[in-house]
This record gives sequence, structure tokens and C-alpha cells, in this order.
Amino acid sequence: MIRAGILGGGQLGRMLLQAAANYPVETYVMEGSSDAPAVQLAGHFVQGDIRSFEDVYRFGKMVDVLTIEIEQVNIDALEQLEKEGLRVIPNTLALRTISNKITQKNFYSSHDIPTSPFVVTQNLEELARHSSMLPAVHKLASGGYDGRGVQLISRQEDISLGFDGPAVLEKAIKIKKEISVIIAVSTSGDTAVYPPVDMVFDPRLNQLSHQLCPADISEKVFWKADAIALNAVKLLNSPGLFAVEMFSDEAEQVYVNEIAPRVHNSGHHSIEASYCSQFDMLWRILLGYPLGNPENILPSALVNIVGAAGHAGPAVYRGLNKVLAMENAFVHIYGKKETRPGRKMGHVCILSKDKQDLMYKVNQVKQLLSVESAG
Amino acid sequence: MIRAGILGGGQLGRMLLQAAANYPVETYVMEGSSDAPAVQLAGHFVQGDIRSFEDVYRFGKMVDVLTIEIEQVNIDALEQLEKEGLRVIPNTLALRTISNKITQKNFYSSHDIPTSPFVVTQNLEELARHSSMLPAVHKLASGGYDGRGVQLISRQEDISLGFDGPAVLEKAIKIKKEISVIIAVSTSGDTAVYPPVDMVFDPRLNQLSHQLCPADISEKVFWKADAIALNAVKLLNSPGLFAVEMFSDEAEQVYVNEIAPRVHNSGHHSIEASYCSQFDMLWRILLGYPLGNPENILPSALVNIVGAAGHAGPAVYRGLNKVLAMENAFVHIYGKKETRPGRKMGHVCILSKDKQDLMYKVNQVKQLLSVESAG
Repeated sequence: MIRAGILGGGQLGRMLLQAAANYPVETYVMEGSSDAPAVQLAGHFVQGDIRSFEDVYRFGKMVDVLTIEIEQVNIDALEQLEKEGLRVIPNTLALRTISNKITQKNFYSSHDIPTSPFVVTQNLEELARHSSMLPAVHKLASGGYDGRGVQLISRQEDISLGFDGPAVLEKAIKIKKEISVIIAVSTSGDTAVYPPVDMVFDPRLNQLSHQLCPADISEKVFWKADAIALNAVKLLNSPGLFAVEMFSDEAEQVYVNEIAPRVHNSGHHSIEASYCSQFDMLWRILLGYPLGNPENILPSALVNIVGAAGHAGPAVYRGLNKVLAMENAFVHIYGKKETRPGRKMGHVCILSKDKQDLMYKVNQVKQLLSVESAG
Repeated sequence: MIRAGILGGGQLGRMLLQAAANYPVETYVMEGSSDAPAVQLAGHFVQGDIRSFEDVYRFGKMVDVLTIEIEQVNIDALEQLEKEGLRVIPNTLALRTISNKITQKNFYSSHDIPTSPFVVTQNLEELARHSSMLPAVHKLASGGYDGRGVQLISRQEDISLGFDGPAVLEKAIKIKKEISVIIAVSTSGDTAVYPPVDMVFDPRLNQLSHQLCPADISEKVFWKADAIALNAVKLLNSPGLFAVEMFSDEAEQVYVNEIAPRVHNSGHHSIEASYCSQFDMLWRILLGYPLGNPENILPSALVNIVGAAGHAGPAVYRGLNKVLAMENAFVHIYGKKETRPGRKMGHVCILSKDKQDLMYKVNQVKQLLSVESAG
């Protein structure tokens, strides 16, 4: 039986393990905390630091194929393991390119992949020299995750908010739509492209409101996004599952924002909405099987369940009963013991042919469901 | 967080645990062997004998709600636990009625639920007195499972093959169709009825060939099966998930064969083919949530993957690649380490609008896929 390792034990790992149980595979998870969401479903849990060369190397020696559920892993160890013959998916070259914002942006520009104009800055002094780029977004080259390491620099006076280390400064684009396209690449080079997802922003709360699939975009943007994403992923030259996050503007230009070389929040709807979920798809890739069908069963909306403001401590879920009473609403709770304000605690996927119905239910879910602390 | 216990750790438990990971629930599994399919995905594994009063009672004290994935459990312990306030789903009255073939048949006849004519026999001597019933099927009152404890008595000379203990002798019915209807009953008494499944028999091999959903039956038989199954389950007066197995004959009469008070092989297609799978549905019942949507997404066929004749030992799966190359074919391997001739090792579910396509793929799966031993 193939032994497959996952670096990281969060909700992505948990959903991967739910899907793994369909296949003849022995699963291994390396993660720092034995309380993490994926640990309970892992065949073998190995406690360790995924950023440590020694821990990752030792873990790699236990398995036949290795993947990640977070980019912040020790790539040197993966390179060594790959040299010694281990299958690492995505491969370390792709991971190296993506894991650093500077090499990622250089990859786009050197391959004529449309992306927002940018400059590399090594420190605040260099940043100050590029005030002509403002308004712009300053992104730390490495170590950022889930919004950390990203800073909007609107005006000259904001420059002190920037990062005093290697980073990229990207010219702000007037975003009309945020789109994600998930693409699978098998070990034999076959590809499967999921329909684009619309990351709908809530301007009032200044955060993601919900996701829609298929995206509510013009046909032109649809095909551009599809072609740009597929081209970018092919140029990475690696098997794996990739989420290509893009922007479109009023002029219907499409820009690659970033690529995640792993299962991704923007693909969670695929569990119910697609014939083959992103998690099933990654197992097919890891185990060397043919790719599955990425088509939609029905249009869907996805709402992240995040910890309520002002609540930190043992999690309590309010409103699950009402949400589960809605037709074709599916709840995924990630099994995190503690909630914190804004922490991703789960998601709700809704299926419906009717867009009005989806929007109505999205609003219902947001009103009905909350994660609070027990105390 | 609710603590839920499952008695038994086979593939049904495994698929239940895959679905459980979506909900805020702490899972407990009691099973004799730590190698069993469900153990790896259990939050807590408790080694024990599900037929032992002490083991089951002790296990019940660890949880807030208890269910089964096999009927052969210690019902006395469950009754005691229920008396002490534990939620047992299905309730022990329903379990008591169903777990014994004599009380089950008496339940049908006392409630005018159509079932094949029968007599109760206590031993071979009594059996011999009922030769006018032949051809008939002799079923051991308790202890039978998956074909064990069932004997066809065609002629007078076969009587010695019968059981010399409490049993029922059922007049053989000229079966046209074997149908299964899965029904969910919530703790508040709501019901959800899945479309009927057609258990297609292979007369050449004298075994189940595959399942089709919806069943290929006349509208009359469809509605009869639906009404009879729902009535029978309601009369059991218990929350839970039930599979009602029925026969229809040439005259379009429908007879209840037996009821399983748990998730069932005839509902495995529901993972991909239904909006809410039977496993998800049972969690909704156990956790007190509203029922999900039992409707079909698409018509489906299901093929059990059983161990090849002449092969016993560590399991090797041949042909998975070819099966997974078929559009909308989904493989579930149960994680059993050892194969044996005829042992259920997994299943394949196929979705398609087109019945010809389903039949073609069923035959392909049967030709391509085999489970052999490694040695």
C-alpha cells in the first residue's frame, strides 16, 4: 500500500484525509500540535516542525509520496528528498518559485503571464523610493499567510507601515472581480480545469463575503482567466493541484495575483458542487490515477464560518440547526477546539440552480450562524 | 461537543466516520480488532466485544448517543443504557424486533405489512412437518449475517440442510425484482425517503450483480414499495436510518423481506448520487439536526468489489487505474488488509443520465477490477 505524507495538519489536511479513506493508501501527517484538525483522521501522526530540515527529512523517509497543505515548509529538506528519489507533489522547483513572492512575481513577468506591475524592495528605504507606484500593496517575500505579511500602502505617509525586509511592491489595481481557477495536473501531464470561482468581497466589512461558482463574470473574462491560469500552471511544470488567484478590472483585463500549489479555500465548494472534489483530485494525482471530472454538478455558493469578534476560547456553534434545515446546505466544521475572532472554523456550501436562491441562502447563513466561545 | 459511539468498526463505520468529520462531534468506535476498517478514522477506539453486556455497557457510559453498524450487538446492555437515559438510535425496541427473524416476521404479520407466508420452527423435527411450504427459505432466528444462517429448502430431501434451532421457514416467492428503500427518521419524527434501489441479480453466478438507483420498476411497484417501506418504518417507532429490503413478483405484489436498522450496502451510491448521503443523514439524526435532501443528483449504478476466488491474504487491487479513467466512476476501498474469496473489499459507484452508459460501465468495472492476494 502506498504511504502518502502530508506536511501540515489543518483543515485542508483534514478534508484531504476524509477523501483519502476511499483509496488504498496509508496516510501520514506531520504537524506541530496533536490537537490540529487533521490529526484525528491521520493513519499516522508524526509530531514535528514542518519548517525544520531534520523533521521534514525524517518524515519524508517514512513515505512514498509527499504533499503539502501549507507552503511554509522546509523546501531544502524536500529538495534533498526529491534528489534521493522521493515523489514530492508539487515538485520543489514549483514550490520554490511560489513560496517566495519575489521569485513568484519574477516568474510571471519572465513568462509574460499578466500580473500587476511591481518592484522588488529589500527594506523600507528602498520602498520610500517608489512612491510613484502608490497606491500599492506591499507583500513580504516569504512568511506571509492568510492576510499576514500584506500591507496596503495608499499614500506616502503609509510607507512606514511597509516591511523592512525583502518584499514586493505591487501597483494597486482597481479590482472589479477576484477570481480563482483550480487546476489539476497529473503525473503524466494531463490537466483538469475547474470552473472559475468568484470571490465576492464585502466592501462594508472589507473582507471576503462568499464565493460563487461558476463566477459571475463576462464570457471574455471567463475565457481569459481560464487560459491564463492554465498557461501559468503548465509553465510551473509540476504535477499537483493549483489554485490560481486572479483579478479582473473594468477593462476586462485579467491579472494573476498569486498561485497556491495545493488544495485551497476557493475550492471547498467542490466537495458537494463538483463531480470530483479538489481533495479527491489531489489523491488521484498523488496515487498516479487518472484525473477525475472537474465539472459542476450545480452552481454553488460558499460561506466561510469564522470566529465571532470578541470571542476567544472553546468553540460553540450557534445556528447549525437552522442552516442545516435549508435545502442543499452542507456544513463543514473543522474540529478546531478554540475559536478566535476571524479564525476559519468551518464553511457552508449551498447548491442551487437559482442564483437568487443562492444569494438568499448566503445571507441567511451569515445571519444565522456564529462561532462563539463557551465561557 | 457531543460524543457519539458506534458499535462495530467495519466499512459502514468507516464511511460514517468520513461523514462525521463535517460536524462538531467526538467519535467513539467499539470493535474487537484494532485492524478493522473504521478504527483509523475514529476519534477514540475502544477495543471490546460488541456482543458482551459489560463491554457495550461500559462503552455506552462514555458517550452521549449510541448507534450501530451491525445488528449483532448486546441489546440487553443497550436497554439498560437507554433506561439510564442514553440516546440509543435505533431504539432498543426496534432493534429487538428486527434482530430476531421470528419477532421481525411476527411484527410484519401483526401490522399487516405484506411479507412472504411463514411458519416458525424450533428444530428440524418441526421443520419436517411443513413440507407443504416447500420450496421455502429457512432462516435462523438470530446470528445470521450477510447470507449466513439462510438456507434454501427446495424439496423434502433438503430438510436436513435446515437449522435445528429457532428459525422461520418462509415460502419462496417467485421474485421478479429485489428492491431496497432507505428511510431516515429524525428524533422529532420527520422522515426522508430515498428513491428505491434495484438489486440486480446475476442468475449465472447466483449472486448480486449490481445495484441501480432509481430502480427499474413499474410506477405501480415504485409507489407500493415506497408506501409499504415508509409504513413499516413508521411502525417501528424509532429514530434512525433504515433499509427496507423488498421483493416484487410478476403480479406486481410487493413483500417486505427484511429491515436493516442502520446504514446499508444498498445505500452506498448515496455518497455520490444523492445530495445527502445515508451517512450524512444518520449523523443529522444522531446529532439532532434536521434531515437532509434524499433526492438523486443523477441515476447511478453500484458494483461491490469482492475478493477474487482462490485468493486469500494481503489485498492487491488490480484495474483501479482503468476504472478511475471512466467518467464519473468513484472508487471506495474499505481498507481491509486481507482479502478472502467473496469478502466485500470496496465498491464502485457510477453516475450517468444514460442507462446504457451505466450498464456498459458496470460490465467494464466487473471485467477490469479484481482483488487478489499479494503472494
